[in-house]
Parts: sequence; structure tokens; C-alpha cells
Amino acid sequence: MEAKLQELKNRLVEVNDLESIGAVLNWDQSTYMPPGGAPARGRQMGTLALLTHQKATDPEIGHLLDDLRPYEESLPYDSDDASLIRVARRQYELNTKVPPAFMAQLQSHMAESYDLWTRARPANDFRMVQPALEKTLDMSRQLANFFPGYEHIADPLIDYADYGMKASSVRAVFNELRDSLVPIVQQITAQQPADDSCLHQVFPEEQQLAFGLDVIKRFGYDFNRGRQDKTHHPFMTKFSLGDVRITTRVKERDLGEAIFSTMHESGHAMYEMGINRSYEGTPLASGTSSGVHESQSRTWENLVGRSRSFWEFFYPRLQGVFRQQLGNVSLDTFYRAINKVQRSLIRTDADEVTYNLHPIIRFNLELELLEGSLEIRDLPEVWRERYASAIGVAPPDDKDGVLQDVHWYGGIIGGAFQGYTLGNILGAQFYAAALQAHPEIPAQIADGEFRTLHEWLRENIYQHGSKFTADELVKRVTGGPLDIKPFIAYLKKKYGAIYNLN
Amino acid sequence: MEAKLQELKNRLVEVNDLESIGAVLNWDQSTYMPPGGAPARGRQMGTLALLTHQKATDPEIGHLLDDLRPYEESLPYDSDDASLIRVARRQYELNTKVPPAFMAQLQSHMAESYDLWTRARPANDFRMVQPALEKTLDMSRQLANFFPGYEHIADPLIDYADYGMKASSVRAVFNELRDSLVPIVQQITAQQPADDSCLHQVFPEEQQLAFGLDVIKRFGYDFNRGRQDKTHHPFMTKFSLGDVRITTRVKERDLGEAIFSTMHESGHAMYEMGINRSYEGTPLASGTSSGVHESQSRTWENLVGRSRSFWEFFYPRLQGVFRQQLGNVSLDTFYRAINKVQRSLIRTDADEVTYNLHPIIRFNLELELLEGSLEIRDLPEVWRERYASAIGVAPPDDKDGVLQDVHWYGGIIGGAFQGYTLGNILGAQFYAAALQAHPEIPAQIADGEFRTLHEWLRENIYQHGSKFTADELVKRVTGGPLDIKPFIAYLKKKYGAIYNLN
Repeated sequence: MEAKLQELKNRLVEVNDLESIGAVLNWDQSTYMPPGGAPARGRQMGTLALLTHQKATDPEIGHLLDDLRPYEESLPYDSDDASLIRVARRQYELNTKVPPAFMAQLQSHMAESYDLWTRARPANDFRMVQPALEKTLDMSRQLANFFPGYEHIADPLIDYADYGMKASSVRAVFNELRDSLVPIVQQITAQQPADDSCLHQVFPEEQQLAFGLDVIKRFGYDFNRGRQDKTHHPFMTKFSLGDVRITTRVKERDLGEAIFSTMHESGHAMYEMGINRSYEGTPLASGTSSGVHESQSRTWENLVGRSRSFWEFFYPRLQGVFRQQLGNVSLDTFYRAINKVQRSLIRTDADEVTYNLHPIIRFNLELELLEGSLEIRDLPEVWRERYASAIGVAPPDDKDGVLQDVHWYGGIIGGAFQGYTLGNILGAQFYAAALQAHPEIPAQIADGEFRTLHEWLRENIYQHGSKFTADELVKRVTGGPLDIKPFIAYLKKKYGAIYNLN
Repeated sequence: MEAKLQELKNRLVEVNDLESIGAVLNWDQSTYMPPGGAPARGRQMGTLALLTHQKATDPEIGHLLDDLRPYEESLPYDSDDASLIRVARRQYELNTKVPPAFMAQLQSHMAESYDLWTRARPANDFRMVQPALEKTLDMSRQLANFFPGYEHIADPLIDYADYGMKASSVRAVFNELRDSLVPIVQQITAQQPADDSCLHQVFPEEQQLAFGLDVIKRFGYDFNRGRQDKTHHPFMTKFSLGDVRITTRVKERDLGEAIFSTMHESGHAMYEMGINRSYEGTPLASGTSSGVHESQSRTWENLVGRSRSFWEFFYPRLQGVFRQQLGNVSLDTFYRAINKVQRSLIRTDADEVTYNLHPIIRFNLELELLEGSLEIRDLPEVWRERYASAIGVAPPDDKDGVLQDVHWYGGIIGGAFQGYTLGNILGAQFYAAALQAHPEIPAQIADGEFRTLHEWLRENIYQHGSKFTADELVKRVTGGPLDIKPFIAYLKKKYGAIYNLN
């Protein structure tokens, strides 16, 4: 058994090595690759992806997993070995149930569709991508049908990002969340909007970057095992547990952009950096789901980074860096500016209160499209209706409407958006549990001290990597299931104080 | 036939893709990788190298090459298809004649030996690496013996870097070169050494880098297909014909370091960038030998970059950048400083006149070691003797003696050094041919104009990639064989003027 387990691990490490190499290619493409490198890089990534897929679906892995089943069953569920075999089997099944020819066809279609979108969005021309999007929907359905026995056709697609979540339960939670959010949004937006002009002066890039790096260093982002570079869109990427990089972007006239994206990505990165080092190279050595991952990025960006405690420590420092711009701006004004709530069109720019309304709209549209109750050709119009009714503003065009997010154009329809909102819900649940265990955390944050929080997250969430599903993890950590109450309580308390709500 | 040729190309492109991916990993490791990434990166590179080797030695490539032989023979020797098949066969034979197990053992030994060297050199302790070096010599001999039928045991090893060159002919050329160099060195070093103190003031890094970039942009280095980053040791690396990067290093107190290394690496890069784009991804899409490659780096670094014409244009600009440091230094003083000739210990720091004495010493030592007429244990002492007799200075220790170059410690013994001197010889031959075709080149250089030279090199050398061997190329370009006369004539003319030699 030991020899078989070792053989399995060797094969999994090989697959992981190839995936990590792909991540390096991708990072380089986004950071430093000169334009002339693009054509060959695309081909090289294709060559590597094919080899990786061949290795990941080698029938010998299937045999080893079968042979190891009795051993797995003899071990405690949460032992490292049982978990490794279990998670490896899950991934092997995801990889092998889809014929390679279909996967290649899908990838090639997505590349084409993405390319169309990069031109259709600036041209505000949905019709340009409509046929491609129809094909994407068709192929997304086909993909789901390689996993028969589902309850809802979206379920197998949701599994790719948030394993074990179901359309039915997510929909129920999201409906409950929306019903709770709408009155809060109404109360706040009935008031005079916050003045955030202090954030839109000129802030030189170099100082913005240095400030962000100082913040995440204090969070506990380990620069010995990571670095930050600039990209068009910020992201986190991991080449090993010893090399977890982040990227950011800077806008000279928007102080929030770099600072909050840096905190956000550092949250993703600290999750990966905190995984048990003995899992290196195996399928356990990754965050467990997109929802749990997002819970960590949003914890550091929002629960910590947009808190008053945080800025009690950091605002005087920020003023020190930008004396001319912020010297006469009070902490109160600044705090209200970075927490400005408004009905808006663009998901990625939305504040904490209205944000979740955006992914919920998309999640419901995904379900309806997959079910067949909504046609692609009607999507732009339905998008406008949903925005008008759920958020209270409707996009004047498709550019800032149905074309705004890359997801459906560079990927499948189904499973793409629930993670964002699950992340906000889970983040608040985890954070409430951390505060219960350590009520001193906010006071420590106000002293620029993050070790207690970071250590609690490492101990309760990070170290486990993919050992537990999101459902299992939330139960372990909070004692109960996914629950919107901590998030709603957090919003009511924080924004109640800012906006004097009753 | 067409289908088989296409199949061969597909397989060669796949191998090339994997090799290029390895180059990206290596570049990242040298430029931006955080220290924590090292262990996994080493493993990932090993995984990739193994896969690359499997693909490169797939017997199907051998069958295709056999099947394509009649087609190849039906074509002109210098046609693209015949050349592709010919060069692919040569590489396939180099790859397949050595058993994979031996190659793995050699690589693992070299990694170990390199690691020992990184500690032995600072400790000035040759005995620490002696056993490893003895094993390297033994394995180098074994490697040569996988290619029976050689004239000299070094020949198969020389083939790896400078295909078709033979120990006997290289030795003869090198002896002739040494005999011609020694009297020139004697004449120059009998005089007062040039004063190069102007180069050793403080020159801020940023301006040094910007100046270097401006120079190579004018040379014709294409930043749309490349970029420069900083590394511990400068190098050129290629990920495709559309992505050819260089690196440099800067010393604040040595103005020559960054500028000349930037020009040097840009020469390597422009060679690769100039290869016929239709060869992309095939074995033809690389410079043909280490000697020809070095001829191009040395052309731009020395023949152009240390010429008086060059500085007639650039020195006023350099003075503009470093007004305080160079404002009162005349062009004459600066020109003498960057061309200071002296007997010295370190190959990489040596001037144009004495430089070749260094690789010649190493080349001869390699031959003697491989022949068995010299033992590793006697190497430090023999090194000192050779330096004393050939260069006129002997290292006081092994750190700056036998331990100075990484080559034998991170690679095999044999074939490691001849390329440097072949490069200087070939560079002068090619340059003389260019000047014969375009006598206006020096005047253009004095105007900061390099198009005629660059275009001539592209047309006569770069575009062919690996189509012709070094021997074939020099014959094509100059009408004759490898010949030291143009190099000696160049030195005599240039240094005769500087030192008023007769």
C-alpha cells in the first residue's frame, strides 16, 4: 500500500509540476512578456496543457486510486492520506469524465469567444458575440451532461469552482441574502451620498505601491515566498507553497484601486502560503473552493482593510505619505469615502453593501440560461430589467451591461459567479468565529498588529488546503452551515454606524 | 512525404516548445523568483527536462528522419527542408546516442558539483571539489565514448557547442593565435598602463541602464520582441523568435560593466532575432554554434562598442548623462580607459588583446585532462604555471585561479571554452567582410547609425539560423576557412594607434 501511495503521489506531483509551470507561463505573459512573444507563447501553453491533461488522466492514476480505496477506508476521514486519496479521486473524475476532444474544442472555442469579446465590449456590440455565446451555452450544457445524475444542470458546473454546492441551496441562500440587502441599500441610498473626492486627487504610483506593500507585510504576506508585480488585472498565482505571487494595478487618480486590490490579492495569497507545507505538490495544496478563497481575500480587503480600526493605525501613515493630498482630510471623511455606498453598474467597482446584488443577478441568469427558460438573444434586455429592479440603476448600453464581465466570454456559463457572494458570506462567518475566539482582534488591528487574526485563520482554515470541502470547513469552524446572518449583522453594525441607521 | 515532413515538424515544434518553457523557468529563477520558490522550481525543471528528453528521443522521430532521407537527398543542400531534416537528424543523434540513465546521472552530478563549487570558491578550497571534478572528468570521457570513431576524445564534446570543429584543427589555430598575440601583449605592457580611473567613479544605476538601452535600441535590438532585466550574471535567453530577452548587471563604481555587457548580450539577441521567421519552433531557429554566437556578441561589444567611431557619437551623450563625472574627461582618455590592456588573472575581466590567452589555456588543459596526460589533482599547480608563462601573472590562490570559471563545475570538461576564442576570430573575419562590402560602416557608426552593418549581418549570418555549420558559414561569408589574420590585423591596427606601436 505504501508503495502504491508513493506511486500515486509521484504521479500527482508530476501533474502539479506541469500545472505550476503553466502558471509561470501565464504570470510571465501578464507581467513582462514583450508583445512579440504572444503567438509562440499561446502555442507553448497549448503544448503544455495537452501534456498536463494526458498525465492527469493517465489510467494508471485510476488504477492506483481503486487499489488504494481499502486503505483510504481504513483511515480517519480527515487524515492526510485519506484526504489526499479522496481529493485526488474527485479531481481525477472531473478530469476523466470529459472526453479530451471535447475539452480541446471547448478551449479553442473559449479562446475565440474571448477574442471576440475584447473587441465587442469597446464597440458596445453584443450581437458580435451573440453566436459565440450561444455556442458557449450549448457546450456548457454538454459539459454538464458528462456528469449525469445531477439535481440541477448547473450543479456539475458549480462543482468545478465550489465543489459540493448545489444550485438549489445556493439559490435559496442568495434569495434570502437579497431580501435582507435590499432594505439596507434603500435606507442608505436615501441619504446624501458620501463625498469620496479625497480619493480622486493625484497620488504618485510609487508611493501607492510602497504603502500597499507595507500594509501586506504587516498582514503577514511573506515576501520570502512571494512578490508583487503590476498587471492589467490584479491576480494571485501560485507556483509552489514557497512561491505565491500577487499582482496589482495602480490608478494615479484613484487611491483605492491599488491599496484594496493589494490587500485583496494578499488575502488569496496568505491562504495558499498558510497551507500545510507537507502537502506540497499534491492536490491538497490549494485553497478548497472559490468561495472559501474569496472569503479570505474579502476578509483582508474589507473586514480588515475597510474597517475603522485598521485606518486608526494606517491613516496617519497614509497622511504622512500623501501630506499634500490628505493632510487636511479627517479620518472620518476618509473612512466614509472608502465605504461609500451607491447603486452602480459595475460589479468590480461596487461597495460592500451593494456588491452581492451583482453576482446574484448573474448567478440567476446562469441558471435560467442553462435551464432553457432564458435565451441568449434576450440577455441584454433581461440584464437591464434585472439591474433596474434589483439595484435600481439600468445600464444605458451593453458595454457596462451584459458585456462587462469577462467570465462568460472566456469561460463556460455556469458556476462562474456564486463564489464571489459565497466568499462574502463565508468571510463574515469565519471572521465572527475569529472574533468570538479572540475579541481582542479589532484592538490589535488598531495597533497595526495582525498576528492573532492571521494565526487563527492559518490554524482553522489555511493549513487544511483542500482537505475539507467548503461545507465541511464552515461546519468545522463555525459549528453550523452556510449562514448569511453574520454578514448581514456585520453590514448593519458597520453601516448603521456610518449612516446612523436605526 | 509532405505528411511525414509535417509530422516531423510537429514533433520538433513540441520539443522546441518544451525547451522554450524550460528557458522561461530559468529566466524567472534568475530574475524575479523569490528565494522560497527554489526547491519546487528545481523539481519542476527536472520534471520538464525528463519530459523534454522523452519527446526529443521518441523513436518515431528517428523513423521519420529515416523515411525522409530520400526526400532530403533530392533537395539542394541549403534548401530549408533539407537543412531542417539534416540539423534535426544531427540533434536526434546527439540526444539518442547517450542513454537517458547516464544523462540523468550526469545532470545530478553536475548539480552537486556546482553546489560544491559555490562554496569552494569563496573558501579558496580546491580540495573540496577535487573528487567531484575527478568524477566529472571520468563522466566526460564516458560521454565522449558514446560517440565512437572520434579522432580526439574531445571532439564529440566540442560537437555539443561547436559542431564540426575538431580538437586538432582548433589547437593548431589557437597555437598560431597565441604566437601572434604574445609579442603584441609584450609591446603594449612594456608601456605605462592606461589610466582608467574615470570609469571608477560613482555612476547611478538608473542612468547606466537607460544609456545602455538607448545604445542597443540604436543597434537594432527590437524591444517589441525583447526586454532587459537585471541578474547576477548577464545572459541572453530565447523563448521564441518573437521573445529574445537579455539581462545585465550594474556596478555603480564600474561604468564599463553594464554598458559592455548590455552590448554583448544584445549581439547574441540580435543574432536570434534575425533568424528567418519561417524557421520558428524548429531546430533551425537557433544560432549555429557557440563560436558564431560569440562572434556576434563580441562584434557589438568590441568591434563596434569599443571602437573610436562609436564613441565619437556616444561619448558626448554619455558626458551629458554623467556631466559631473565625465565633463572634464576627454574622449581620448575615455577611449584609452575602455581599451586598457593589462596582464590579468580573470578571463571575464580581460581586455580584447589578452582575453584569448585565457580560453586557450583552458582549452589546452581540457585536452590534456581528457587525454590523461594531466591529473585533476595537479590542476591548480599547472594552472599557475600556465598563467605565469602565457600571461605573465600567476594567481596567488585557487579562487582566482582554477576555481574562477563555473564551466567545469556546472558542466562537463571538454568543449566548454573554445567558443569564446573562436568567436573573436570569426567576429573579426565577418566584420572584415562587412567592411569590404560596405566601407562606409565606420563613418555611419560615428553618426550613431548601425543599419547597414546590422542588415549585412542579418543577411549573411543571422537569417540562416542553424542551417550552416560554423565552417560552412565562414566559407560562405568570407570565401575561406577560419583564419586568425583579420583578428590580428584588427588588434594591430587599433592598438597600434592607441599605443603607437610600429
